[in-house]
Amino acid sequence: LLVFSFHGDKNAGFDLLYHNMKHGQIATKELAEFVRERAAIEETYSKSMSKMAKMASNGSPLGTFAPMWDVFRVSSDKLALCHLELMRKMNDLIRDINKYGDEQVKVHRKTKEEQVATLESVQAVQVQNGHLQKSREGYHSKCIELDRLRKEGAPQKELEKAELKSKKAAELFAVCIEKYNRVGGDFEQKMSESAQKFQDIEEAHLRQIKQLIKGYSHSIEDTHVQVGQVHEEFKQNVENIGIDNLIQRFAEQKGTGKDRPALVGFEEYMTASVPEGSKKSRGKAFRIPGLGKRDKEPDST
Amino acid sequence: LLVFSFHGDKNAGFDLLYHNMKHGQIATKELAEFVRERAAIEETYSKSMSKMAKMASNGSPLGTFAPMWDVFRVSSDKLALCHLELMRKMNDLIRDINKYGDEQVKVHRKTKEEQVATLESVQAVQVQNGHLQKSREGYHSKCIELDRLRKEGAPQKELEKAELKSKKAAELFAVCIEKYNRVGGDFEQKMSESAQKFQDIEEAHLRQIKQLIKGYSHSIEDTHVQVGQVHEEFKQNVENIGIDNLIQRFAEQKGTGKDRPALVGFEEYMTASVPEGSKKSRGKAFRIPGLGKRDKEPDST
Repeated sequence: LLVFSFHGDKNAGFDLLYHNMKHGQIATKELAEFVRERAAIEETYSKSMSKMAKMASNGSPLGTFAPMWDVFRVSSDKLALCHLELMRKMNDLIRDINKYGDEQVKVHRKTKEEQVATLESVQAVQVQNGHLQKSREGYHSKCIELDRLRKEGAPQKELEKAELKSKKAAELFAVCIEKYNRVGGDFEQKMSESAQKFQDIEEAHLRQIKQLIKGYSHSIEDTHVQVGQVHEEFKQNVENIGIDNLIQRFAEQKGTGKDRPALVGFEEYMTASVPEGSKKSRGKAFRIPGLGKRDKEPDST
Repeated sequence: LLVFSFHGDKNAGFDLLYHNMKHGQIATKELAEFVRERAAIEETYSKSMSKMAKMASNGSPLGTFAPMWDVFRVSSDKLALCHLELMRKMNDLIRDINKYGDEQVKVHRKTKEEQVATLESVQAVQVQNGHLQKSREGYHSKCIELDRLRKEGAPQKELEKAELKSKKAAELFAVCIEKYNRVGGDFEQKMSESAQKFQDIEEAHLRQIKQLIKGYSHSIEDTHVQVGQVHEEFKQNVENIGIDNLIQRFAEQKGTGKDRPALVGFEEYMTASVPEGSKKSRGKAFRIPGLGKRDKEPDST
């Protein structure tokens, strides 16, 4: 592909391919920055989740709802962990990207050295092309001069001199053509090999970048799954805390007592055998007036 | 449940149940704050995703990787939308929670009025209990006095006076007992009804809160599914941009030309019939030296 598209008059193709190779380092850097940004975002989100966990743990203990805050707290803490782990994976990925970046630089340096020959052949073509143009012009101008002298009926000596010049110019032109063609053929061979080499490098580069992006995808997906599980768990936990359960919990913790106040009965005051201030009036529990038993009349002796 | 657990000596149960009902407003407020916090977090995350989309759109156009940035940009933009929508849903939920909070206040006010009778019967029990204690003490002290006078062999007139006082004290005590029992029975009936009422309110409250939490869960889940789809799409898009595709795109956009430089052939300079400066040297494409055809020798005339 590259082999076929980077020809053209000015032989700018090689230069373009070489610099395109170097541009691969930009992609690597920018990808690292992008991932770094994502890592920062996930860290922020994780901290926010921790803040929510704190809010939940600071939920008022008053009221029957209070135990529910535990569910929110646990869930928020777990989400914080999920996103913190994603941040770590992003950081690991950045290291991998940077490592690849270092390898890239090495490959590019090595390639630069290996491509010197092609670079030189590009320059050789340009040089020979210059000679070619000059020798063509020289040849044409000598022919024009000869023609002019012939038309003017110049002396034979001058004509012979002009013919000689014309012939020498033609020979020079031919030599330049031959050199140009040879150098051109050499360039074509080297350029084909170089273009293929650059293509191989580009393919390897894109393959590696795609692998890194795959790693990026996987990390995000893993976290996504974990987060989904935390949500499921949250839903279940809320479901499991029954309303009756909450009310019962409240009754057990804050209940003032299960004993109903008792009916009071009249107790005669017994002297000597009864200790001072004894309370003997605990009796049966309260009943609806009119339905319960009544105690002794107050006039017993 | 509440009906059974809020008795006890000091009749503090009613007060506790009443205030527990009011505490329900705290849960509502705190839930609203919690959801508000989540809304803010999602908005922040959404903006961060937009920032990443911008980074991607600013990806260098140099190099073969450049078209890939579109995939990142599209994905980031979609994630931004997902989280923005979650923020909106959280805001809607806050409105619902606040609306419920307003209803709660109304219910509590109404309940307060309805419970005045029970509150008054609590107070009545406490008042009658006070009278009961006093009349008991009065009765006991009269008995002790009578006993003392008898032991000392006091005159009959004093004994008869003391006996009368003792009898009247006993009657008063009995009356207080009867009043206390009556008021207590009334309290028990009212308290049972009130406790049931408070329990009904609590159940309705918790039911409503759980519904609101369900709404919270659903919104988060919906967004989670959307986000998963965006991730899938990202993966697919990366997969679909083939390496060959990228290289080809680069070749088409930056290619310097498909024409291989041509071999130059010697062209005799033709005067008169050939315009000045005509280039007739375009010929066949370059071939590997030694394998290609060679052009005419330069000594043709």
